[in-house]
Amino acid sequence: MFIQCFEEIIILTNQIELISITDQIKKFVKSSNIKNGILNISILHTSASLIIQENADVEVQKDLIYFYDKLVPMNKVSYLHRTEGKDDMPAHIKSSLTNTNLTLSVKGHKVQLGTWQGIFLFEHRLERQKRKVFAHIIGEK
Amino acid sequence: MFIQCFEEIIILTNQIELISITDQIKKFVKSSNIKNGILNISILHTSASLIIQENADVEVQKDLIYFYDKLVPMNKVSYLHRTEGKDDMPAHIKSSLTNTNLTLSVKGHKVQLGTWQGIFLFEHRLERQKRKVFAHIIGEK
Amino acid sequence: MFIQCFEEIIILTNQIELISITDQIKKFVKSSNIKNGILNISILHTSASLIIQENADVEVQKDLIYFYDKLVPMNKVSYLHRTEGKDDMPAHIKSSLTNTNLTLSVKGHKVQLGTWQGIFLFEHRLERQKRKVFAHIIGEK
Repeated sequence: MFIQCFEEIIILTNQIELISITDQIKKFVKSSNIKNGILNISILHTSASLIIQENADVEVQKDLIYFYDKLVPMNKVSYLHRTEGKDDMPAHIKSSLTNTNLTLSVKGHKVQLGTWQGIFLFEHRLERQKRKVFAHIIGEK
Repeated sequence: MFIQCFEEIIILTNQIELISITDQIKKFVKSSNIKNGILNISILHTSASLIIQENADVEVQKDLIYFYDKLVPMNKVSYLHRTEGKDDMPAHIKSSLTNTNLTLSVKGHKVQLGTWQGIFLFEHRLERQKRKVFAHIIGEK
Repeated sequence: MFIQCFEEIIILTNQIELISITDQIKKFVKSSNIKNGILNISILHTSASLIIQENADVEVQKDLIYFYDKLVPMNKVSYLHRTEGKDDMPAHIKSSLTNTNLTLSVKGHKVQLGTWQGIFLFEHRLERQKRKVFAHIIGEK
C-alpha cells in the first residue's frame, strides 16, 4: 500500500557554508517506515540551495565555496538588486546555478546515494539564517 | 487513494526573459484536486529552462539575465554549433546550468514554496518561441 | 493500481564526454510496464552528472564540454582538494553546476521528452570510469 510522509526540517546557518543534512534526511526516511519510494527535498528559499557532493574531504567544500564566490562576485557594482545587501543578488544567482530541489530513490529503507555522496544545504548569505527544508516521500512499507 | 494527473502547459515567449508560471502551476494543482502529493514539472526543450527564483523584485530577474548573458556570451566565435543562430548554443549551455525539471511537494492542496519563491520559465532564445511545459502530479485527494 | 520498479544501470565511460542514456532509460520504462508515472534518475557519483540536452547535433556536446572545461579549468593551482588528480575537483564543481538527478514524466508508456531532448551522462573525469545510474519509477499500468 502506498503512503506518503512529509516533514519540514529547520537548519540554522552561520555564514556562507555547506552543511550536511544527510543525517536529518536519513532520519526522516527511517521515521516514515517506507521501504521503497521516491523522496523529494525542497529548500523554501532563493538565497540558499541544495547540492549532493563529496562527503569525505572537507576541502572539496572549501573549493566549491571559493569557485562560486569567484564566479559570482559580491562586489560587482552592476547588480541592480542591491537593497538586501551585497551578498543577496550573488546568493540568488548561486541558487539558480545549483538546486532548489533534489529527488532521490529509497530502496530497502535506504536512500540511494553513492559511497561518497552527501546531501548538503549550501548557504549563500553572509549572516545567520534559519532555513526551511521540506522533505516528502511517497512509497510502500 | 492515489491518483495522478498531467497537463501540457503552453507558454509563449518573446525574447530572453523570465516568465512566471507559478499561477498556471497552482491552477493545475487545484484542478487535480490532489491534497498531498509530488509534482513534477518538465520543460520539453533544450534552449529554455526552469528555475525557482525570487518573485518580488523584478530587478532580480534582470540581474539573472545579465549574469547568464555575460557567463555564456553569444558572440564567441569558438562555438562549433552555429547553424541555428548565435543565441542557440548559449541557450543550450544556459539550460544545462539551470533546470529542465523541477520537483515540488504539495501539502494541504498547496504547492510548497517559500514566501519569496516563484516558478519561472527562463527563455534563452532571442526570437518568439512557443514552449511546452509538462506538469504531472501523483498524490491523494 | 500503483506499483514501482527500479534498476541500477551501469555505464562505462572513457574520458570527459557526454554519453546518451536515453535508450537504456526508455528500455527500463518499457520493462516496468508502467503506463503513467513519475521517473527518477540519480547518478551515484560526485564527479559525473546527468543532463538533458540536444540529441541531434554532436557539436552541441563538444561545445558543452568546451564551455565547462573553460569555466572550471583543471590547471588552477588554487584548488585545495588535489589528491585525486587535477581533474577531480573540477569534476565535483561541474557536477554541482549540472544535475545529480533528473525527474521525468511518463504518459502513455512514453517518457515525456521534447523532440530534441536526450538524456546524457556527463563524465567529468579523464580516465575510464564505471558509473552507476539508479532509475526508479512509480506509476500505474
